[in-house]
Amino acid sequence: MPEQITLYTSSASPYSHAVEIALVEANANFKKFEFDLKNKPAWFVSKVNPVGQIPAITYGGPDVPPDQPSPDSVKLRESTVLLEFIAELFPGAGLLPKDLVLRAKARLFLEISKSKLFPAWFGNFRKGEPIENLFAILEHLQAMLPPTGFVVGGYSIADAYIASILSRADIIFENNINTNGWPDDEGARILETLRGPRFVRLAQYKQDLFERPSFKSTFDKAALTEKYKGYFGPQPY
Amino acid sequence: MPEQITLYTSSASPYSHAVEIALVEANANFKKFEFDLKNKPAWFVSKVNPVGQIPAITYGGPDVPPDQPSPDSVKLRESTVLLEFIAELFPGAGLLPKDLVLRAKARLFLEISKSKLFPAWFGNFRKGEPIENLFAILEHLQAMLPPTGFVVGGYSIADAYIASILSRADIIFENNINTNGWPDDEGARILETLRGPRFVRLAQYKQDLFERPSFKSTFDKAALTEKYKGYFGPQPY
Repeated sequence: MPEQITLYTSSASPYSHAVEIALVEANANFKKFEFDLKNKPAWFVSKVNPVGQIPAITYGGPDVPPDQPSPDSVKLRESTVLLEFIAELFPGAGLLPKDLVLRAKARLFLEISKSKLFPAWFGNFRKGEPIENLFAILEHLQAMLPPTGFVVGGYSIADAYIASILSRADIIFENNINTNGWPDDEGARILETLRGPRFVRLAQYKQDLFERPSFKSTFDKAALTEKYKGYFGPQPY
Repeated sequence: MPEQITLYTSSASPYSHAVEIALVEANANFKKFEFDLKNKPAWFVSKVNPVGQIPAITYGGPDVPPDQPSPDSVKLRESTVLLEFIAELFPGAGLLPKDLVLRAKARLFLEISKSKLFPAWFGNFRKGEPIENLFAILEHLQAMLPPTGFVVGGYSIADAYIASILSRADIIFENNINTNGWPDDEGARILETLRGPRFVRLAQYKQDLFERPSFKSTFDKAALTEKYKGYFGPQPY
């Protein structure tokens, strides 16, 4: 019998979503405990993750309720660490390809999504950094995609990771959610570019990502839209 | 016969050093092409790494001189991607342990070294950020170490990675190299703390790291000290 897995997550967190997608892709039997980032349970820090961040998982140990984590389970954290762990724990899911060069390509795509794409997106809607920063990185990532399909052919952790970011960026742009005084049509203008000739391949890729059953079953767009409106407020003018 | 590997590197770059250590640990047959970061060959960007960063490797393809890279080799980049690739290409080197939980622990240690330790060190000597930031992260990493030995027992990519940072930090502190007006004794005071009771386990770990043959054979401390003095200037007062 496989060891128990409990995922600690919040719907607002893209990285937590990526890990959940991977667990669903792996057909893993896991429990999920969701909390609001602004209302973190004290036991989470003392018993699961001393640095308080999600995603985190407990692995192994006795079968306990998620809010009573056992000292006997292994505690793991950091989204990329968890994604690699899930890919290795469930090799049959093919979350990383067998070919070593393709594995490296998946990891590079994921690394760029993490270290470049997310900061550029966040920097734009939260801090007013130029949207062109985001477009340039998306163009770079788009150029890494094969003509059809996912990053390295079959669905991998690279796809789970970027799906969690791109889906949240859509919510932000579609609802013009921002904290730096965007004009009323800023989000719409950004979407126009993303849906235009510059990003044809990316648009198809996004559609493939969002139609993936593991994505659909783990993403409640309406609820997350309301949450983001609450977090980042309505347009601040 | 294994595929050819060419590593593009610069002695100033900790991440490149980490990749070279891993190749030496793996007893890989590889060529090394070193250049100065301030004097990057144009062909490197056009033929090896379009984003211009080191470390990068070419893998496979014909046996060509490093400064005439073949279009037929695979081009790989990003230090963490390369370290994972080398660990997988040479599984006998044990650069990641077999146990999945220990693998996750090695990756977490490496991730913290990358996303927290390096910025705190750089932020201190280049931008005058508080040294306590660096100490706090080192304490966190120290607490992750087992009582003796390396991060997950045997030598792993986590050790190669942090060795490249900690060895360069020593050079900075020992020579009081900085660009933000440190007092004459700032580096000495930092070293006093690092050698004191707060960091006993870390000090032993550093000694183990620096005595590792793969480290010693790839680290020219005197030459790198001179290079850093040139890069970051003498004390700016």
